[in-house]
Amino acid sequence: MEPASAIVLALDVGGTSVKAAAFDGDLAVLAEARRPSVTGPAILEVIAAASAEVLQTLSDDQRARVSAAGIAMLGLVDRGRGVVVRSVNLDLDHLDVAGPLSRRWGVPVVVGHDVQAAADAERRASPGGHDDPFVAIIGTGIAGVSFVRGEPIVGVSGQAGELGHVVVRPGGPLCRCGSRGCLEAVASAGAIAREYTERSGRPVDGAMEVLSLVGSDEVAAAVWTEATEALADGLLTVCALTAPGEIVLGGGLAEAGSALVDPVEAAMKERAHVVTVPPVRRATLGSRAGVVGAALLAFDLLEVDA
Amino acid sequence: MEPASAIVLALDVGGTSVKAAAFDGDLAVLAEARRPSVTGPAILEVIAAASAEVLQTLSDDQRARVSAAGIAMLGLVDRGRGVVVRSVNLDLDHLDVAGPLSRRWGVPVVVGHDVQAAADAERRASPGGHDDPFVAIIGTGIAGVSFVRGEPIVGVSGQAGELGHVVVRPGGPLCRCGSRGCLEAVASAGAIAREYTERSGRPVDGAMEVLSLVGSDEVAAAVWTEATEALADGLLTVCALTAPGEIVLGGGLAEAGSALVDPVEAAMKERAHVVTVPPVRRATLGSRAGVVGAALLAFDLLEVDA
Repeated sequence: MEPASAIVLALDVGGTSVKAAAFDGDLAVLAEARRPSVTGPAILEVIAAASAEVLQTLSDDQRARVSAAGIAMLGLVDRGRGVVVRSVNLDLDHLDVAGPLSRRWGVPVVVGHDVQAAADAERRASPGGHDDPFVAIIGTGIAGVSFVRGEPIVGVSGQAGELGHVVVRPGGPLCRCGSRGCLEAVASAGAIAREYTERSGRPVDGAMEVLSLVGSDEVAAAVWTEATEALADGLLTVCALTAPGEIVLGGGLAEAGSALVDPVEAAMKERAHVVTVPPVRRATLGSRAGVVGAALLAFDLLEVDA
Repeated sequence: MEPASAIVLALDVGGTSVKAAAFDGDLAVLAEARRPSVTGPAILEVIAAASAEVLQTLSDDQRARVSAAGIAMLGLVDRGRGVVVRSVNLDLDHLDVAGPLSRRWGVPVVVGHDVQAAADAERRASPGGHDDPFVAIIGTGIAGVSFVRGEPIVGVSGQAGELGHVVVRPGGPLCRCGSRGCLEAVASAGAIAREYTERSGRPVDGAMEVLSLVGSDEVAAAVWTEATEALADGLLTVCALTAPGEIVLGGGLAEAGSALVDPVEAAMKERAHVVTVPPVRRATLGSRAGVVGAALLAFDLLEVDA
């Protein structure tokens, strides 16, 4: 089957939800579905159920053209074997994902790391088509991927890109990892909401509500500024070590748009002395990046097989 | 000429001295010379003088076998053109190095970045022959190079590897770059000596003298511990972002051997939560790494040409 007419099944398997979608070769969404996530090997049934809903929505002709599936998983992934080696959030330990699902669907299945897949989708969606960006995914947690000539730096352990666990405020807020002052403990969406509530005594429904208060509430303004400055410090460290050509801010917090990008870029420029600050821009795919990344994994598999 | 019988001229051009040497294909030193460094384009004359001394020491037969020259320069280098784009310490701006020296010596000349050349020499000298190490060069300043499958990450600007300007102690000691709390301002050989003298009122002849006092002098012990802890924090950041397979500590400070490596590795393991700490080892070439790296640049050039 020609890749041009092929359709792929794409899944973004995170800690909160499993998103499934079918994409054509132009990366247009033909159908989509979503299920709440579960922990343990039962995640395979949730993936299968969400996928079944997507497949049922397709026409008979479209269903016949489904040629591969890509799955972006939260955790440490052995891509060659299609196995999730370990996922603390999903409570998985050496779970074969590609094998059973490939047998169920009758198509080849590729399994990738969720942040790497999302970052690669944002990289390829870049208007400049930049080969050497650093793509940060800022949401409940924070992670990021450095690309060198289009290839992600995954590290020997497969665990590169832990931007969220770069310590930017030694002795600062306790991170869920056990360290103090990790970037994630100061500047993730969760940390921003938590810090605001702690200081103001007012519960909020996430970081976007804190942002909406910035103009009228001094505590909100302070928390937001501290988060953007911490992000600037973390990203300056990335620039010092790997000198990317562009910084792309994605994930849920990037929905703040210029309210995030502008102060981060300004703080980076103000603080940089030796380090060169590349252009900083907002990611374009937002919360769809993971599922688009999964679709790209599947299309890449078809190209390799072709 | 067969690379096996070729001899190369190798130069390590730093802020303090210009080291020149001739190497055979087994990387044995056949002759060497050293001159004090100068600033500005006159550095070319110093390079020529040190090289002339080396060449005169060789036998007629050896001199006839000199087939290429490698120059490791302090600064931002355009390797393709053999030009030093900028070197603050050597006060150079777009100086053609390869052109005039190639005409003078009648052999091809390759110009590389001093830290990258030194790091690559240490990588290749690794007993494990590791392809994905992070090699830190800790001396007057601090820099480092991440290797991915044997290739250095140089960055889009060519300015990757500024480990010395990763901020590990926000609000800490003022760095010569203008920032506060850079790793270089806490843990370089210069910073260790300076900090000891500031706290004790006692002048010392470098960081090695501080180390020699550690057993008997509380101030020396505190300064040394603070430096190794800061190095551990900077290297943990490297591990979080790029997950190297090995960390190699080189440069002048690495002459401390296990007095440096052991506390750095211990502090990394103690502080790491999410991040995997790879083996940490001392570099093997020490202060010769730059000139060996320059020789490797030259031999690589001969291989490409062959």
